Amino acid sequence: MNNKDISPRISPTSLVEKALDPREFRQALGTFTTGVTIVTAMDPDGLPVGVTANSFNSVSLDPPLVLWSLARKSQSLTAFETASHWAVHILAHNQDELSGRFARSVSGPEKFDGIEYDSGVDGAPLLQGCTARLQCRTANIFDGGDHIILVGEVIHFDRCDTPPLVFQRGGYAIATSTAQNIMPPAGEDPRNVSESSPLSYLLASAYLHFSAKLREQASLRALNELEYLIISALNSRNGRSYKELVTLAAYSGKQMGPESINDLAARELIRIEDDAADTDERTHIFLTEEGLVMSDHLNAESQRIENDMMQQLGVPETIALRTLLSRFVRIHSPLIPYRWF
Amino acid sequence: MNNKDISPRISPTSLVEKALDPREFRQALGTFTTGVTIVTAMDPDGLPVGVTANSFNSVSLDPPLVLWSLARKSQSLTAFETASHWAVHILAHNQDELSGRFARSVSGPEKFDGIEYDSGVDGAPLLQGCTARLQCRTANIFDGGDHIILVGEVIHFDRCDTPPLVFQRGGYAIATSTAQNIMPPAGEDPRNVSESSPLSYLLASAYLHFSAKLREQASLRALNELEYLIISALNSRNGRSYKELVTLAAYSGKQMGPESINDLAARELIRIEDDAADTDERTHIFLTEEGLVMSDHLNAESQRIENDMMQQLGVPETIALRTLLSRFVRIHSPLIPYRWF
Repeated sequence: MNNKDISPRISPTSLVEKALDPREFRQALGTFTTGVTIVTAMDPDGLPVGVTANSFNSVSLDPPLVLWSLARKSQSLTAFETASHWAVHILAHNQDELSGRFARSVSGPEKFDGIEYDSGVDGAPLLQGCTARLQCRTANIFDGGDHIILVGEVIHFDRCDTPPLVFQRGGYAIATSTAQNIMPPAGEDPRNVSESSPLSYLLASAYLHFSAKLREQASLRALNELEYLIISALNSRNGRSYKELVTLAAYSGKQMGPESINDLAARELIRIEDDAADTDERTHIFLTEEGLVMSDHLNAESQRIENDMMQQLGVPETIALRTLLSRFVRIHSPLIPYRWF
Repeated sequence: MNNKDISPRISPTSLVEKALDPREFRQALGTFTTGVTIVTAMDPDGLPVGVTANSFNSVSLDPPLVLWSLARKSQSLTAFETASHWAVHILAHNQDELSGRFARSVSGPEKFDGIEYDSGVDGAPLLQGCTARLQCRTANIFDGGDHIILVGEVIHFDRCDTPPLVFQRGGYAIATSTAQNIMPPAGEDPRNVSESSPLSYLLASAYLHFSAKLREQASLRALNELEYLIISALNSRNGRSYKELVTLAAYSGKQMGPESINDLAARELIRIEDDAADTDERTHIFLTEEGLVMSDHLNAESQRIENDMMQQLGVPETIALRTLLSRFVRIHSPLIPYRWF
C-alpha cells in the first residue's frame, strides 16, 4: 500500500455509460426555443390528417428543403409515409388552441371538425390564420430512432405579418426582439434609458408619458386630474360610494375632499344619492347622462392615444408588454378600478 | 364564342413550376422561431472548431437523438464530417455576442481566442455560461441539399436556469411565457385584469403599485410626494435649476411652489444657491450631505422593492418587461430624470 492514488481517472468518454434521465433530458431540450407548426396531408383514403410539431426546421435554400420529425407511434405515420406532399403551417401567436387540438393523439379527420380549410398540393389541407404556410413535396424520409425525419422540398409558400406562436420549456410564449435599434430622442439623460434602467424609472416614464396626454384631454374639458379620475372610476362602475372614491384617490396619491364631488355635481356631471343615514358608506355617486357622454368621449380619446402608441411599438411588442404588465398587476394586488386612467 | 369560361383552371400542382424567391423564402422561414446554438468539435489536427446554428432540433427520446444542419460550403465541414463527437450549446439570452462571433465564416481556432472552455467527449470544446449543453456521438449524416444533416446521439448533457437566447425574423429576441397561470388576487374587478386590458390601465396599475410603496418609504422620512420627487431628481443630478424642477414636477402632474424648496432647505436637506440676478434659471438647488445620505437610502429602498417584485415576476419576464418599457420610453421622448421615482 502506498499513498499514490491508483483509482482510474474518469475520462470524459466514460460518460457514455451513464443512462440519460428522460425527464431531465426533455427539460434540457425544452430550453431550445421553437415555433409551433401543424403539418397536414391527405391520407390514402382521402381523409385529412394533421399533427402538431415543433421539430420543424429549415435545411437548405438551393434546393429549398425543410424537415420535421414524426413519432413512429403516431396514428398518422402511414399517411405521412405515403403522402407525396404535405403542408407545414407556422402557427400565429393566437393559435395555441389549434396547436392543442392537433397535438392530441386521436385519428386525423375529427381534428378538422368545424375548421375551414383550403386544399393544397395533393389535397393537403391548408389551414387559415397562420403566420406562414409551406407546401412541400416529400423529398426524403430518414431514420430518426423512435421518430422518422421527413425532408420536404418547398414548392409554394405564403406568409403574413401576424407574430408567430413560440414554444419554450413546455409552454407557449411570445418572442420580443431585444434589438435597441430605436435611438433615444433628445431629452433628459437619454443615455440612461436602457433595458438596465431601474424598473421603477421605466414604469414611471412610460406611465407619465401616457398620463400627461390624458391630462391634456381632461383639461380640454375643464377637468383637473382628480376630477378626471373620479369620472373614470364611475365610468367603470357607476354608483360607487363616497368612501370608495376617497380610497381610490388615496391609492393614486391624491386627497379627495367633498369639494371635488360638489363641483362636479354643480356642473351636472354627477349626482349624489344619500341613503337615510348620513355616513360616507351610504353616499353613492352616479354619473349623469351628461357625465356618461363625457366619460365615453374620454375613453375613446384614451383608446386613440393607446392605439397610436401601440402602432409605434409594434404588434408583438405590444402583446408582450400587455402580457407582462398584466402578470405584474395580477401578482401585485390591483386596487385601482378598470379605466382608472 | 360562347359565355362559358374555357380558360384552364389552375390546379394547385401547377404551383410547382413557380420559382421561389430566395429572399421571400428566407423571410417565410424566419417566422419560425428558434433558439440559437453553437456546435463545437475537435478537428483532425487537434484544433477546435465551432459554428453558430439555429437549425438544431430534437428528434428522438429512445435513443436520445438530436439533429442540426451545416452548410456544405462551411469551412468546418470536413471537421464535422470526420468528428466522432460534437457538442451542442444552447445559448443563454446574454450570449448574442458569442453567437455573432461563431456565425462568422472564419476558420475555427481563432473563434476561440480568449474564450475559456473545457474539453468534452472526443475533445469537443465545451463553452461556458450556456443554458444547456448536449454532448453527442455522430449517429448519422444525411443529405440535405446545400447542407448536410447531422444526427447525434446525446451521451451527456447539463443545463442551468438562465433564460435562452431566441432568434426570430432575423434578429435576437427573448421569449415570454403567455401562460396566465397566476390567479388574480381579490381586489378591484380582478376579472378585468388581463392581457387585453387597456395598456393605460395596466401601466397605471403597475406604476401606482410601485409608487405607493415608495410613498410609504418617503413618509417614513416625513417627505411628501413632491419633496420625494425633488430629492430624487437632485440625486440623479445635483444642482438643477429651480425652473427645471418646476418643469419636472409639472410633467408628473404636480405644482411646485417655492414653499417646498424652502421647507426642504429649513430641514437642511437642500441648499439654495442664487446667482447675481434673481431669476428662476439662476437659482440652483443642491442636496446637502444630509440630503445625499437620505436620497441614497431612498434609492436603496427603491432597489430592494424592485428586486422583490422582479423575483416574483421571474427572470426572463423581468428582462422582457425592462426591454419593452425601455423601447416604449425611447419612442416617447423621456422627459423625466433618471430615478425620478
